[in-house]
Amino acid sequence: MSMKAISSKDATSLDKDLMDQAIGGWSLDQLMELAGLSVSQAIYRVHPPSAGKDVLVICGPGNNGGDGLVAARHLAHYGYNPSIYYPKQGKNELYQRLKTQLTNLSVPFIPEADFQPALKSTSFIVDSIFGFSFGGPLREPFPSIISAIETASVPVLSVDAPSSWDIENGPPKEGPGAKFMPQFLISLTAPKPCVKFYRGKHFLGGRFLTKGIAEKYGLVVPEYPGVDQVVELDIDAEGKL
Amino acid sequence: MSMKAISSKDATSLDKDLMDQAIGGWSLDQLMELAGLSVSQAIYRVHPPSAGKDVLVICGPGNNGGDGLVAARHLAHYGYNPSIYYPKQGKNELYQRLKTQLTNLSVPFIPEADFQPALKSTSFIVDSIFGFSFGGPLREPFPSIISAIETASVPVLSVDAPSSWDIENGPPKEGPGAKFMPQFLISLTAPKPCVKFYRGKHFLGGRFLTKGIAEKYGLVVPEYPGVDQVVELDIDAEGKL
Repeated sequence: MSMKAISSKDATSLDKDLMDQAIGGWSLDQLMELAGLSVSQAIYRVHPPSAGKDVLVICGPGNNGGDGLVAARHLAHYGYNPSIYYPKQGKNELYQRLKTQLTNLSVPFIPEADFQPALKSTSFIVDSIFGFSFGGPLREPFPSIISAIETASVPVLSVDAPSSWDIENGPPKEGPGAKFMPQFLISLTAPKPCVKFYRGKHFLGGRFLTKGIAEKYGLVVPEYPGVDQVVELDIDAEGKL
Repeated sequence: MSMKAISSKDATSLDKDLMDQAIGGWSLDQLMELAGLSVSQAIYRVHPPSAGKDVLVICGPGNNGGDGLVAARHLAHYGYNPSIYYPKQGKNELYQRLKTQLTNLSVPFIPEADFQPALKSTSFIVDSIFGFSFGGPLREPFPSIISAIETASVPVLSVDAPSSWDIENGPPKEGPGAKFMPQFLISLTAPKPCVKFYRGKHFLGGRFLTKGIAEKYGLVVPEYPGVDQVVELDIDAEGKL
């Protein structure tokens, strides 16, 4: 299946529409639950528990990080042993509640000192640091984190966009992220323009888009198979969706 | 898989624990999303769209009805044509938001005059009228509705409990519901004691139970396969779980 990309500005506006009580009627809790669930299903597909149960989920301070927290919770229920690195916790009370849910599942939040050892011992990395609203520049500790996952020896799945990439223009010309090409990417709701620079397995998640909202933003409602919350997208040789 | 039942009183207390910010950290939006999703997956399993896309979802005024609204939304995304009969809308603003989401998917809310015709033309009925907190007696319009679905010619799936059944003691001795035996039942979080009177295909949903909460209520965390949000439970010849 191929699909049109949505700009960062339009993605922000689309999110606002979804959560406008007079338009979409969604809560952030609902949207994040379905987004994080789709992330967890993509991970299960490319890296089932039999391939390694240790998954390191790196979460940024915003909603991309929240999607990672929800995904980690589902991974714990699937039988994985996720651990979370969450160096800058966001202020939204939802993030605190997600932390409580994860702590109740004995999912560890690792301290900074354990990040490098965790990178070496894990079997899979989830990059849920920055999503479509990332405008740069990277501020510490994120340049160091991006540098570390860019050279990691295990597969990486990025949520919504490879963190450090410009949402329109792709990887930075130099510095952390310039050579970051995660093996897996899951775009949420619709791909972002930077996917034209992406070479890897590409999924789409967020099975809640309606025809009305899709038409408003020039998108197509994707076709998901069965009850799946995730679908693989094709990218042609030129990176065209 | 077999499983212990939970009393109505304990189920109320368990829900309270889940939504206590200092204990479970869950919001009703999150729990209802996962509960409704599991209902939709059970429906897809027993009645895929190829068996008939018209599904009539009958919703009660409380959270059981809310689970039905969420399930209907997912059904619409799976390619079904759900319609909703919601004669007594609950006051929680979440229900209004779920209605908005459904209206955006062109899912109709049918008026009372269309209920009987819809019963005759639909291919599947979802009873999400009352759940574990039902204490009786039935008040109009629900006795008429229960009478109608009890004699329906198409399969019925009940959410959490067959509506009209006493949560401890099962079907009423006489009147509406006395002969109500839905073909399918999905218990949420844990079966209720009335399942010992149930003969039919029995599922469990609500994949969010943690060991800590399960132990507190003498339950076992069920084993769900893969990424499924639903699992079939065994009931032996004596109705013992």
